Amino acid sequence: MTISKGPQVFPRAEYLRRLAAVKSEMERRDIDALVVSSPSNIAYLTGHTAYSWYVPQGLVISAQEDEPTFILRQCDAPAALHQTFLSPSNVIGYPEDLIANPNRDGYDVIIDFLLDKGFARRGVGLEPGFLTLKTGQAQEKFKTRLSNKTVADFSKAIDWIRLIKSDLEISVMREAAAIADAAIMRAAEVIRPGVREADAAAEIIGTLVRGANGKPGTALAHFLLCASPRTGTCHIRWTEDTFRDGSQVNLELAGVRHGYTSALMRTYIIGKPSDRLRRIHEAEAAGLEAALKTARVGATCSDVANAFYNTIEKMGFRKDSRCGYAIGIDWSEPTASLRDGDMTLLKPNMTFHLMLGNWVEEDFGYVISETFRVTETGGEALTRAPRKLFEL
Amino acid sequence: MTISKGPQVFPRAEYLRRLAAVKSEMERRDIDALVVSSPSNIAYLTGHTAYSWYVPQGLVISAQEDEPTFILRQCDAPAALHQTFLSPSNVIGYPEDLIANPNRDGYDVIIDFLLDKGFARRGVGLEPGFLTLKTGQAQEKFKTRLSNKTVADFSKAIDWIRLIKSDLEISVMREAAAIADAAIMRAAEVIRPGVREADAAAEIIGTLVRGANGKPGTALAHFLLCASPRTGTCHIRWTEDTFRDGSQVNLELAGVRHGYTSALMRTYIIGKPSDRLRRIHEAEAAGLEAALKTARVGATCSDVANAFYNTIEKMGFRKDSRCGYAIGIDWSEPTASLRDGDMTLLKPNMTFHLMLGNWVEEDFGYVISETFRVTETGGEALTRAPRKLFEL
Repeated sequence: MTISKGPQVFPRAEYLRRLAAVKSEMERRDIDALVVSSPSNIAYLTGHTAYSWYVPQGLVISAQEDEPTFILRQCDAPAALHQTFLSPSNVIGYPEDLIANPNRDGYDVIIDFLLDKGFARRGVGLEPGFLTLKTGQAQEKFKTRLSNKTVADFSKAIDWIRLIKSDLEISVMREAAAIADAAIMRAAEVIRPGVREADAAAEIIGTLVRGANGKPGTALAHFLLCASPRTGTCHIRWTEDTFRDGSQVNLELAGVRHGYTSALMRTYIIGKPSDRLRRIHEAEAAGLEAALKTARVGATCSDVANAFYNTIEKMGFRKDSRCGYAIGIDWSEPTASLRDGDMTLLKPNMTFHLMLGNWVEEDFGYVISETFRVTETGGEALTRAPRKLFEL
Repeated sequence: MTISKGPQVFPRAEYLRRLAAVKSEMERRDIDALVVSSPSNIAYLTGHTAYSWYVPQGLVISAQEDEPTFILRQCDAPAALHQTFLSPSNVIGYPEDLIANPNRDGYDVIIDFLLDKGFARRGVGLEPGFLTLKTGQAQEKFKTRLSNKTVADFSKAIDWIRLIKSDLEISVMREAAAIADAAIMRAAEVIRPGVREADAAAEIIGTLVRGANGKPGTALAHFLLCASPRTGTCHIRWTEDTFRDGSQVNLELAGVRHGYTSALMRTYIIGKPSDRLRRIHEAEAAGLEAALKTARVGATCSDVANAFYNTIEKMGFRKDSRCGYAIGIDWSEPTASLRDGDMTLLKPNMTFHLMLGNWVEEDFGYVISETFRVTETGGEALTRAPRKLFEL
């Protein structure tokens, strides 16, 4: 029996619009066949969010065809048929005996497909990152077997197209942002003296899954809870320790809807904040406002970062790390950065995580952030949790 | 102020034993400096489980030095100091301005370190997989800048060493297995008609975080809940749908302790199972017993797979995909596979996920699995949940 199509997050026309932008970039680079291997780019172009990238897979885009063809492991093909807008004939499952097979793998099937269809006349574009993750020599295999074609690096090209979101994408990111907000508020309820970090994490993560406004989270992104004495670290998940009076908690989390991620960070303190904590919060909150105000169409990423840096420096602090990055299907899109010197011009509906985590010393840090979109008048935060230091 | 060392999961001697095995393999390959980039291999050799691999990092092992040196992003260095057994001088944070910097990145710092220290006399080993993930041309950079050395592919070499666990590792995997068991039992309580998939997922995931026997989960691995009409898919997380009478739920989850993953799969049915479902369960449960019985020291991976295939074929079923894979710090270690033709000889304390998910048609599948260790007398399951079709 065949599997039915699931509810489609975006209309077919939205995917065709995205594909048209990719094909236009292919044309510009004299590439007539592209193998997309980044899972986020595959999600962007098809709606596929099932976990299938742990083995070779590729979305093949041909300049000659309207719809791309998704080639993936046989047992993962039903999920692609269910989740994506693709016609059944454009989802190809390769045989299970190619898994963990040293002689032939899914990439051979993709290369066979390119050759059989005659899709690659001028050049073939590849994304080496995920291509190489599980089979170190995958890129070499493409180059060898397509030896009479030009094999070009198409890394980040689709990611740059993704940087500007459609209104439809923004509305999904708002749903994700509402989930992040709910989780931040839940944290303020469950972080208490005597509670284990893990038990608080379980409650907050539960909120990220249950979601908000009747719309559940559709996946979990990273969840980072760095509590005293670890507030100077940024990427520890949680520990077995128990909160006490005076414990500080730095929380970094995200809501996810259909692959789209809206991230949010807040700091909590059980009891009264130290003078140092209060002062850094005030500086960073002021810097956040300055950055959002600056983030209007026509400004650069560098302008936004420097608005933040200048504000906090006047208030006695500095931050060494960048102030954020593009966000969307990936938590951190590998394109524009909110850093000094990034001259990317802001355009309407670019979305960023304004990430103001500041790990000042090995044993002291503070975090605050918003996920925002660029508008004509400045950055509009999609996340709406109070911009405060949560005193519990 | 400096950050304190956190509780150490393994004694220093255990890490030095692991490093000695790696150095012996380096010697065999005429490699005197190795850059480890796989996050799982870094965890194995140091205890580092913080999320820091999203940007360049590397653990540099020199034949000349007892302790390796961990080079990572400055803001991630405190977590490495806290979590690992490494001396403070062996954790090097590279400057924040190398993040999203097109001219110079963390890999340049690693290469400078190799050159300055004179570690690379004969050859340098690399793991191209994660090396290339975020910066497609990272491998080329190493080859260019170390042009007068031999640069060798060390992929999977440490993974093969990891295949055989120490008793200390097995005891951590038992803790993870107990968490997986608890989550599977929690699922039997919360999967009910009228409950949204997402709400059940939140409860089950909560158990994975809270843990079992006073030992919380320390991270979340993939969580896959494929319910009617999606039981023919294997890797969808959960949806917004609501369970009904007659809904079938295939659950795949894992407990995680300090990076170590024990995976477990069970099938649930609300109401009475169909004849087809009952029959496949009986065949697969019998196949599972046969496979575990076969999985003793001296047998091959192929023997285990064929014990399963033969049993279910006699009972009228077949499974196209492999029967499992090595498991440990990764959910799926990229080494031995329980598949026909994999002649890896089983040795004591090798650990596998005996993964008997069987996606028979696009709209029908069934799952059962155990995480087990190899003993002289057969596979000993670390996971202990009842091997039944859960009728709810």
